[in-house]
Amino acid sequence: MITPQVAKEDDELQEECGVVGIHGDPEASRLSYLALHALQHRGQEGAGIVAVNHKGDLESITGVGLVSEVFTESKLNTLPGDIAIGHVRYSTSGASMLKNVQPFIATCKLGSLAVAHNGNFLNYKQLKRKLEENGSIFITSSDTELVLHLIAKSKAKTFLLRILDACEKLRGAFSMVFVFQDKLVAVRDPFGFRPLVMGRRSNGAVVFASETCALDLIDARYEREVCPGEIVVVDRGDVGESSMFMVSHPEPKQCVFEHGYFSQPNSIVFGRSVYETRRMYGEILATVAPVECDVVIAVPDSGTVAALGYAAKAGVPFQIGLLRSHYAKRTFIEPTQKIRDFAVKAKLSPVRSVLEGKRVVVVDDSIVRGTTSLKIVRMLRDAGAKQVHMRIALPPMIASCYYGVDTPRSQELISSKMSVEKIRKHINCDTLAFLPLDSLKQVYGPVESHSYCYACFTGKYPVTEEEEEEENNAERELTAL
Amino acid sequence: MITPQVAKEDDELQEECGVVGIHGDPEASRLSYLALHALQHRGQEGAGIVAVNHKGDLESITGVGLVSEVFTESKLNTLPGDIAIGHVRYSTSGASMLKNVQPFIATCKLGSLAVAHNGNFLNYKQLKRKLEENGSIFITSSDTELVLHLIAKSKAKTFLLRILDACEKLRGAFSMVFVFQDKLVAVRDPFGFRPLVMGRRSNGAVVFASETCALDLIDARYEREVCPGEIVVVDRGDVGESSMFMVSHPEPKQCVFEHGYFSQPNSIVFGRSVYETRRMYGEILATVAPVECDVVIAVPDSGTVAALGYAAKAGVPFQIGLLRSHYAKRTFIEPTQKIRDFAVKAKLSPVRSVLEGKRVVVVDDSIVRGTTSLKIVRMLRDAGAKQVHMRIALPPMIASCYYGVDTPRSQELISSKMSVEKIRKHINCDTLAFLPLDSLKQVYGPVESHSYCYACFTGKYPVTEEEEEEENNAERELTAL
Amino acid sequence: MITPQVAKEDDELQEECGVVGIHGDPEASRLSYLALHALQHRGQEGAGIVAVNHKGDLESITGVGLVSEVFTESKLNTLPGDIAIGHVRYSTSGASMLKNVQPFIATCKLGSLAVAHNGNFLNYKQLKRKLEENGSIFITSSDTELVLHLIAKSKAKTFLLRILDACEKLRGAFSMVFVFQDKLVAVRDPFGFRPLVMGRRSNGAVVFASETCALDLIDARYEREVCPGEIVVVDRGDVGESSMFMVSHPEPKQCVFEHGYFSQPNSIVFGRSVYETRRMYGEILATVAPVECDVVIAVPDSGTVAALGYAAKAGVPFQIGLLRSHYAKRTFIEPTQKIRDFAVKAKLSPVRSVLEGKRVVVVDDSIVRGTTSLKIVRMLRDAGAKQVHMRIALPPMIASCYYGVDTPRSQELISSKMSVEKIRKHINCDTLAFLPLDSLKQVYGPVESHSYCYACFTGKYPVTEEEEEEENNAERELTAL
Amino acid sequence: MITPQVAKEDDELQEECGVVGIHGDPEASRLSYLALHALQHRGQEGAGIVAVNHKGDLESITGVGLVSEVFTESKLNTLPGDIAIGHVRYSTSGASMLKNVQPFIATCKLGSLAVAHNGNFLNYKQLKRKLEENGSIFITSSDTELVLHLIAKSKAKTFLLRILDACEKLRGAFSMVFVFQDKLVAVRDPFGFRPLVMGRRSNGAVVFASETCALDLIDARYEREVCPGEIVVVDRGDVGESSMFMVSHPEPKQCVFEHGYFSQPNSIVFGRSVYETRRMYGEILATVAPVECDVVIAVPDSGTVAALGYAAKAGVPFQIGLLRSHYAKRTFIEPTQKIRDFAVKAKLSPVRSVLEGKRVVVVDDSIVRGTTSLKIVRMLRDAGAKQVHMRIALPPMIASCYYGVDTPRSQELISSKMSVEKIRKHINCDTLAFLPLDSLKQVYGPVESHSYCYACFTGKYPVTEEEEEEENNAERELTAL
Repeated sequence: MITPQVAKEDDELQEECGVVGIHGDPEASRLSYLALHALQHRGQEGAGIVAVNHKGDLESITGVGLVSEVFTESKLNTLPGDIAIGHVRYSTSGASMLKNVQPFIATCKLGSLAVAHNGNFLNYKQLKRKLEENGSIFITSSDTELVLHLIAKSKAKTFLLRILDACEKLRGAFSMVFVFQDKLVAVRDPFGFRPLVMGRRSNGAVVFASETCALDLIDARYEREVCPGEIVVVDRGDVGESSMFMVSHPEPKQCVFEHGYFSQPNSIVFGRSVYETRRMYGEILATVAPVECDVVIAVPDSGTVAALGYAAKAGVPFQIGLLRSHYAKRTFIEPTQKIRDFAVKAKLSPVRSVLEGKRVVVVDDSIVRGTTSLKIVRMLRDAGAKQVHMRIALPPMIASCYYGVDTPRSQELISSKMSVEKIRKHINCDTLAFLPLDSLKQVYGPVESHSYCYACFTGKYPVTEEEEEEENNAERELTAL
Repeated sequence: MITPQVAKEDDELQEECGVVGIHGDPEASRLSYLALHALQHRGQEGAGIVAVNHKGDLESITGVGLVSEVFTESKLNTLPGDIAIGHVRYSTSGASMLKNVQPFIATCKLGSLAVAHNGNFLNYKQLKRKLEENGSIFITSSDTELVLHLIAKSKAKTFLLRILDACEKLRGAFSMVFVFQDKLVAVRDPFGFRPLVMGRRSNGAVVFASETCALDLIDARYEREVCPGEIVVVDRGDVGESSMFMVSHPEPKQCVFEHGYFSQPNSIVFGRSVYETRRMYGEILATVAPVECDVVIAVPDSGTVAALGYAAKAGVPFQIGLLRSHYAKRTFIEPTQKIRDFAVKAKLSPVRSVLEGKRVVVVDDSIVRGTTSLKIVRMLRDAGAKQVHMRIALPPMIASCYYGVDTPRSQELISSKMSVEKIRKHINCDTLAFLPLDSLKQVYGPVESHSYCYACFTGKYPVTEEEEEEENNAERELTAL
Repeated sequence: MITPQVAKEDDELQEECGVVGIHGDPEASRLSYLALHALQHRGQEGAGIVAVNHKGDLESITGVGLVSEVFTESKLNTLPGDIAIGHVRYSTSGASMLKNVQPFIATCKLGSLAVAHNGNFLNYKQLKRKLEENGSIFITSSDTELVLHLIAKSKAKTFLLRILDACEKLRGAFSMVFVFQDKLVAVRDPFGFRPLVMGRRSNGAVVFASETCALDLIDARYEREVCPGEIVVVDRGDVGESSMFMVSHPEPKQCVFEHGYFSQPNSIVFGRSVYETRRMYGEILATVAPVECDVVIAVPDSGTVAALGYAAKAGVPFQIGLLRSHYAKRTFIEPTQKIRDFAVKAKLSPVRSVLEGKRVVVVDDSIVRGTTSLKIVRMLRDAGAKQVHMRIALPPMIASCYYGVDTPRSQELISSKMSVEKIRKHINCDTLAFLPLDSLKQVYGPVESHSYCYACFTGKYPVTEEEEEEENNAERELTAL
Repeated sequence: MITPQVAKEDDELQEECGVVGIHGDPEASRLSYLALHALQHRGQEGAGIVAVNHKGDLESITGVGLVSEVFTESKLNTLPGDIAIGHVRYSTSGASMLKNVQPFIATCKLGSLAVAHNGNFLNYKQLKRKLEENGSIFITSSDTELVLHLIAKSKAKTFLLRILDACEKLRGAFSMVFVFQDKLVAVRDPFGFRPLVMGRRSNGAVVFASETCALDLIDARYEREVCPGEIVVVDRGDVGESSMFMVSHPEPKQCVFEHGYFSQPNSIVFGRSVYETRRMYGEILATVAPVECDVVIAVPDSGTVAALGYAAKAGVPFQIGLLRSHYAKRTFIEPTQKIRDFAVKAKLSPVRSVLEGKRVVVVDDSIVRGTTSLKIVRMLRDAGAKQVHMRIALPPMIASCYYGVDTPRSQELISSKMSVEKIRKHINCDTLAFLPLDSLKQVYGPVESHSYCYACFTGKYPVTEEEEEEENNAERELTAL
């Protein structure tokens, strides 16, 4: 088992991202750009696209900022070709961050190859050490560079077999798209931690994306998920796409936070409507944690759908009790004479006429450190709420995630340190309830519920010691390189 | 009566803006900056602040873009002093637009004075012509420059009396703040077309702003509206603020679109909660235009509150059937192989699981040219809606506004050219209904309803020929200058 | 007589600038842009162009920075038309400087008019006060706005007569170009302080510019100077251009610093080759201030031509003893452990192999405060010079300029406070000599020498009390407005 | 022998750059920034600095543009530590150029290491292929990445020995600085193609730089060149620096173009004053190619010093006949009605008063394709020159350079295709003469002249087949990795 403390040393590797890949469309880079725009909520710090031009060369544009800031019409015009992959990135560190913006391109014996990655390699440090001991250099500080090394080191004859080879050696969460020669390859780790879907445009072009909302924007029809452990290959001039599977085929462990928080409500993720799933969280929450109240409100935007479910089940009107600013940036210049709860107020504004004199249920998706919840409760009371009942549409988060989500260390998670009652007192609400884990599983039913990862609620991580041994085997192989 | 065609020649004068003024706070410019952030929805094209430093000099920063882009900490530091005014601006034209970003500063015989203006002077052209005939020059293309000339030309002894003098000559919509010497002055035209409120911070600082949401963000308590025709003067070292009133005291004609569309739901505008008013629009709409349906959705964000009202009254669940992108910019690069309804799709995404197989009521605030509504209906049908019933929470708009709202020419408004049934066919929805004007007035009751402007629904403009005669008198006075 | 102290209160008005005007070329704005590039040495802080499009509208682009930074191809494309004027600007103050970037456009009774101005109005304050007393407002802090007011206030029937009228009221230095309707007008003040030349392209287009180097770049043939007191009018469809003259026709007083310092060596200014004139300064200096030496070097670039003259006359080799960096910006980040003479060293580098063990004559154009000269001498000695003999190719500057040159107050000029010998000791050179005023006049001969201004060397300003009386008359006229 | 055609396929690898390294100064990064400013003439496309902070971490800032554009005070503040290296870069290709801006940082088994490189590895492709065959990946398109791989692959125990190991394998031109742990290492290839000097500040800090002009600006005393084949190591807390030498010790082949064109005149390069050497080129040229003339002028700036030598020897006055604009950027917007010789005119302006009616000798450093020379001759004639005699202060360039200078392919060099007389006719000058190679060698004398590379004048490249065999050996070794 991976212990949080060790893994957290590489804090910068733990991020949530979005990927896209398009094959067979004459405007592959432009559609990638739109797809990245649709996936912008998965990463706002940087964006990049690599396209394959008619000579088979890989051309790339990457930059810091939003998709609309990184790309201009004239820049996109320098990316011709009918195959492209793209990436949006969350979280970076330091002044030299640009070199960590994906997709990454590398040349090796077989030619040039590019990759975009959403996830986190758990054995990055071990494999990096092995590779370095055998004389490899690492130029970026991103774990994604690792997969390029493994591909280059593989003894297999083709890029495709080498990708398979490399993926067999990797542990952890990875939904990746690759491009090389005339091929686009999409890969999802055997646990299927992070989502990856496949669709098709009416002209036959194949599209891979982290979420279906990206397919919708570019008029691609959703076909299916890339399966956990699957490697889908799309080839030019082929009759269609083909698949390989990695040897490992554990029970899938898909990230339940995608349903509860990350994904867009209009996406289908892990074969389920995010909207419908999130609404059911709210309904069940209303059943297991009812309270006398006058109005149900949400912490927008991620709490809204669950709040609608809660309100409907509770038979209490849903209202917009908190408005989210469309213009709030992370850092806003504050007056020196501190404004109370300024950081939250610049983003969220209470609606007094909804709250005044009311018993309010406020639905949020999660409580991390508790600092924001405390300010929200205070803001609601200041705006006249008579009672504030907080309802969280996911179970208490007690353990850090190592599968691609940027969470604080477990010790910083308020639920790992305090009981629900203590948290309630801390954030000063009248009642507080979380969605119990068992109730959450009801949403998925007795069978499907096994295919999700609940590690952040339980501390029980899917990657066990048994697999670590496998890892040692993998290391032994590498040593032989 | 002002005929639309003539007035529309000065298309660039017709804009919606936001203003703020602060007196008596050591961080006046920084609080103005935050207040402008809260008013950002009233204008995204430019922003500016003028502060009065301890020597009585006016210092200014203006720029093109969002508040967060125009101001930096180091720039704000160049604006010390405890008096400041600010402005956010919507719509500009041409490359030289920066010189039209307010506040404007001018020096005249009595010294320096700055102004920020929300509204539109109907007699701008006539007065400009008179002034030019008497040898004045105009350096900007904004009607706001006019008021500075009138103040400079006034024979009155003090800036204050001259502001009164100037305001008496102006016709149309104007909510303005002025700063000079140690004084802050707030003015609202006799009809009170545009909003302007007054608040106070706990340290005694007086704050004026277009909407109360700006007061909320900077911890100022809302006290009252600036009355139509009132000129409020705040003086340093005074016991409090004092008021003057313009001679003209017609029945107020406040802009009903502020309640229905422009203002933030958490603001109190014209003494009423925007949220509550907008919700009532929706409720009444459900009563007068009911329809069998499975779900009520909104065109976000401005249609959301009315949709909640409609759903509650209709007893049908409200759902998020359309998601608004937080990252959509106005111009997005489109592929050459056109994506259907691209412009709308980049901003709004349908949620299939909410819509599929459903009879959908979709609530919007208005239909302007009808082009967007057509695309929204098509998007909803494409996403599986069985029926689409469009409900507009305001009456049909048939006439252009000359009181500070940037509307197309009357002929371009679809409701001026087509019956409701024709519009329904055009945008291809199953049923279409607007909030009848009489129903709208019910919200305000028999007395208060007289104090609103319905010109855009009726074509009957509050400024009548009778007043034009007054205007001629005003002109005669000017000729005497 | 204008006393320096009073005039220097408006320090920000005193600047050196460059202007251009083009009439009758289909690419008027693009040629203006190139002409401004050629005049870039006259002002690096801001640049602007106003063009008249086919409908007679004035369109403008202005910006802060170098010509190459302000204009892009797409921006220039928004300035069609065959008439344009342009301006480069030196020195600005404050954050709101953009509104002071010329050309200025104003609308008045007769329509729109734009102006670009090189010079300084001595009666700006008086006339501004008068205008303000009569109700005018001033929106910029540039004296150029004044001329627009005077034109608007004039009772004359046409713009042309009003320009004449306005120019008659102005005192001081002004070389200006105006554009309005289909006309381009060039004006030079009766003293002709600042240069202004006229040329013609092979397609018949007329070009005005501060210096002939601008004509050269755009393939325009130099025809003649605009005469002191002349107003040249170029009209569309006319057989040619016509002229008017102001009533006042004093002896011209052209700025000798244009020859000695400001203008490009390849320009013809005041009918003379700048190169030839500057070289003669050097030759005469060698005759009147000879010294035993091994090498003659210049402080580049302005001292180079005089140094060549000195070296030739002295029969001593000229060498490049100081290199000027092409990349030096004004503010460079210095280490905290001070580098000696850093500010000068970032711009100028000594060439040791030229200097080592040598008796060096170093030729510069002027000594202002003396701080730079001191560092140059030290740098030369550090680089091995055995002796350093400084030669200044102009007389000692003892009085501030009020005719468009940005000079420090007279008291700050080292020559106003110290004898040559004291300065020599202060800057620590072996010998120091200036070009005597009488010798300078020899260059021009007994007749022509009267037509130059020597006020900065003598303190005797051309505008005398007698003319101030005229000014009072002008004021009386204005009062009648 | 390397055949030009093959090598030119990697056109983007051939560039001229500048490097700096500082050890033992508390403001190492700030001094590096100033040193890069002094070396700006060696590369204007990009710049970067890597500093070692007190924990031994390498921090980096790199960017596209001039040194003054890439670095700000706040950015430099993020680079604390007393060891730093820096790089300025010329020429890049494609949108993804930022990742090619040096210094490069890599992590390998021994830790992190950074490198900045001026030169060109001739066996880049071969070694890259070998490495790729052994599973290495290349992430940049710069040959500099190669040296990092070689270091990582080396079996030696320390970074230092590995650098030696790597350098033994590299062929071609390389002046490099490395930083790792507490060490700064400077390396120069055995032929010493590119310059690299060493100096010391008064506080004991050691400085390496491409030219001595960088030492001068930061008050470091020039001590000596890094010898061809030398590896100088500077260690913290050491008594001083130590050296190792590569095994190969051929006769040095230093680039004569550094004296004739690249280096700043105030630098000492290869132990010689650039100024003095360049002046001697001009003197000898006057002796071997005299002509009756009235004036000697230069093509500034690189031709100026040779022109001074020519003029002195010929006894004819030197004048400034061509002015170079300080503001010319590479791409300037041209009117559609072409201006003759526009591209040259935007940079160079003729001085008519120097040229008119004169027999002119114009001295330039080289003729590449001949296109610029043709325009210069025409400009001089248009400005009135009666005769134009062109003198080139280096021999005809007939072969492309593979040692770090970005030259066109040999076939594009005009001297490889035409006789001197044909070139004369082509560029239309009255006489044309180059500095004969034998005369050039006279400057250095019979012994020293052997230590320079004349490949571009002779086509005889210092790296011969014999050494290629060695290369094969090197390859064999690599295969063993």
